[in-house]
Amino acid sequence: MRLNPNMAATFPPPVMEARRWIDGVEFPADRPLINVSQAAPVDPPPAPLREAMSKFVLEDDGTHLYGPVLGLPELRAEVASQWTAAYGGEVAAEQVAITSGCNQAFASMIATLCAAGDEVIIPTPWYFNHKMWLDMGGISSVALKAGAGLLPSVDEAAKLITSKTRAITLVSPNNPGGVEYPSDLLGAFYDLCEAHGIALIVDETYRDFDSRSGAPHDLFTRQNWDETLIQLYSFSKAYRLTGHRVGAMVASVARLAEAEKFLDTVTICPNQLGQRAALWGMQNLAAWLGEQRAEILARRAAIEKHFPKLAAKGWTLQGNGAYFAYMTHPFDEPSNELAQRMVRDIGVLCLPGTMFVPEGDPSGATSLRIAFANIDADGIAELFTRMETL
Amino acid sequence: MRLNPNMAATFPPPVMEARRWIDGVEFPADRPLINVSQAAPVDPPPAPLREAMSKFVLEDDGTHLYGPVLGLPELRAEVASQWTAAYGGEVAAEQVAITSGCNQAFASMIATLCAAGDEVIIPTPWYFNHKMWLDMGGISSVALKAGAGLLPSVDEAAKLITSKTRAITLVSPNNPGGVEYPSDLLGAFYDLCEAHGIALIVDETYRDFDSRSGAPHDLFTRQNWDETLIQLYSFSKAYRLTGHRVGAMVASVARLAEAEKFLDTVTICPNQLGQRAALWGMQNLAAWLGEQRAEILARRAAIEKHFPKLAAKGWTLQGNGAYFAYMTHPFDEPSNELAQRMVRDIGVLCLPGTMFVPEGDPSGATSLRIAFANIDADGIAELFTRMETL
Repeated sequence: MRLNPNMAATFPPPVMEARRWIDGVEFPADRPLINVSQAAPVDPPPAPLREAMSKFVLEDDGTHLYGPVLGLPELRAEVASQWTAAYGGEVAAEQVAITSGCNQAFASMIATLCAAGDEVIIPTPWYFNHKMWLDMGGISSVALKAGAGLLPSVDEAAKLITSKTRAITLVSPNNPGGVEYPSDLLGAFYDLCEAHGIALIVDETYRDFDSRSGAPHDLFTRQNWDETLIQLYSFSKAYRLTGHRVGAMVASVARLAEAEKFLDTVTICPNQLGQRAALWGMQNLAAWLGEQRAEILARRAAIEKHFPKLAAKGWTLQGNGAYFAYMTHPFDEPSNELAQRMVRDIGVLCLPGTMFVPEGDPSGATSLRIAFANIDADGIAELFTRMETL
Repeated sequence: MRLNPNMAATFPPPVMEARRWIDGVEFPADRPLINVSQAAPVDPPPAPLREAMSKFVLEDDGTHLYGPVLGLPELRAEVASQWTAAYGGEVAAEQVAITSGCNQAFASMIATLCAAGDEVIIPTPWYFNHKMWLDMGGISSVALKAGAGLLPSVDEAAKLITSKTRAITLVSPNNPGGVEYPSDLLGAFYDLCEAHGIALIVDETYRDFDSRSGAPHDLFTRQNWDETLIQLYSFSKAYRLTGHRVGAMVASVARLAEAEKFLDTVTICPNQLGQRAALWGMQNLAAWLGEQRAEILARRAAIEKHFPKLAAKGWTLQGNGAYFAYMTHPFDEPSNELAQRMVRDIGVLCLPGTMFVPEGDPSGATSLRIAFANIDADGIAELFTRMETL
């Protein structure tokens, strides 16, 4: 069978691979599986949103028909208006497009920026779907090793820029690292990208769970921000709409016109029900979302609280925020083997650091990502009790 | 702004461009716009399906969560079972994957087959989204000029095969041509592809509206069909689910494993409500779909009935089937100008042939595509009455 060599060269979806580790493993009733592998809600949207969605299905014909490639105009306008209020500066509806999930936002923006042979700089540990998408297009992912506290260095990034560099991609709050990038750091990366005429892509999928109050950065207040900045967002986490595939991107009108070609050929339009649900959520669920954020921050605090038990055994907590705790373990075995042993020995499924770094980078072997968003404080206590026994 | 040159080189979505032609044009109440531009239902799904969808939203939590990248196992199994019954041969659930619409099925299959510099042969007039997707990947669309009755010639195709050819793509029933490819012709293309070790992609988006009874081809009965054949399908037309983005593809297990990488990074999974709706439709709407097919065939017959009025004025009907009538006009002006004049002068929006052929191919300038699926027999009579006045 003839295969595109770029496609053959990239790895299979890590989350699907991890799912296979639990196939055939029996988990006793008194020690059920703790699944901290996937960064997604496991509960459905709140009842009022489900009822609104049901009404759209029954009464709004547009829910079932094609819509504009770049998304529902009302949703684009709502994002623009809430962003302008949240970040300062000025975001117009025409600078917002809706996508079939945030991965597609990244894919389409890269498609507008890069051809085969180009380069994108990404701090490690990185989000594996970014790496996979670049691989498939024959684009090089240039690893920028995170420094202390999993923060990337602007000076180190500057050294990696070549004539083939088209963008630097940052994720804040970070997946997998859990760290929230300081506003100044994002500003310095913006300056670097602006000076080199390359794009700064900032993926803010987890922005609604940032522990800080106020705007996480001032990038939208920069003059002509849309000549440098591309921002990505997901509605999946905030309103529990993962199954409906709705994300967004904020960029220049000209770049979105290019992305429209990509989106038209790859999905024609984002699905209409998900877009209506996201709009209803933005307009009606602000208080509810505040409660969700408080709960996630409480879980994050539970991680901090219990971590000393592992620290005493040689573990270190490298990052903790958004949905994630990223930690190093004290064992001789590589993390991809440890993660599989954790399934068998303590009934815990998490992703090994090897999935988040380039092949051969030794830091992956010593790290694990715990996606804690789906376990409450009691569950986190139980998780640490089990991990202590490793 | 730095742009991927492959992206910059392709054209904007034709359907969006055509929509702009009607911006600001006023259509009098006694002569409303007849929109025969887009190949999509304009009515919502039938009431029982909407009620089932509403129930999924309210009661089935899985509707709101991530699912497998390659689709809902029950839907894959249903397609496999109905396909085996319809086509003969053997299609397994593992050889079926669900996508976010049929365009994505094509995009992902091309991604598994081709890198930049490769070639795909497609008969003209072609489906413009195929051409756009290939452009964006730096892949050449090699035009195979359709012969008499808009049927492509296997011998001519053979002459176009080079060491860079990875696939031949056929659409049957054809968009934009409306022609149903005979089983023997599809078989001969299969033989050609098999002999050259290239893929035969057959897009059967409009299969449910084929005027012929029985299987439209015997390709699934060929030995090891999955080493050559890739079939694409859409649930959008059959069950009026365009707004929900659900398509399918049938290929080898190994190729679908490669496509899984693409789909994971570009949308993570098809949306869950659309998949449940498609499954419900397949299991409950066979009789209803039969009525829809009869109605489309009646509209097709109305085109045949009225066409002599235009033939008397120098028009010719080149193809008529699926959702489309493809015709040549007798005027000196190129079709892209004629189409805009039709909006202004007779309140009809259709797509010009220039959108379906490579730049510079003169056959585009003399042709128009009329997507007649959304106008009933009276509407078709009115359409021809207006076109006679051109």
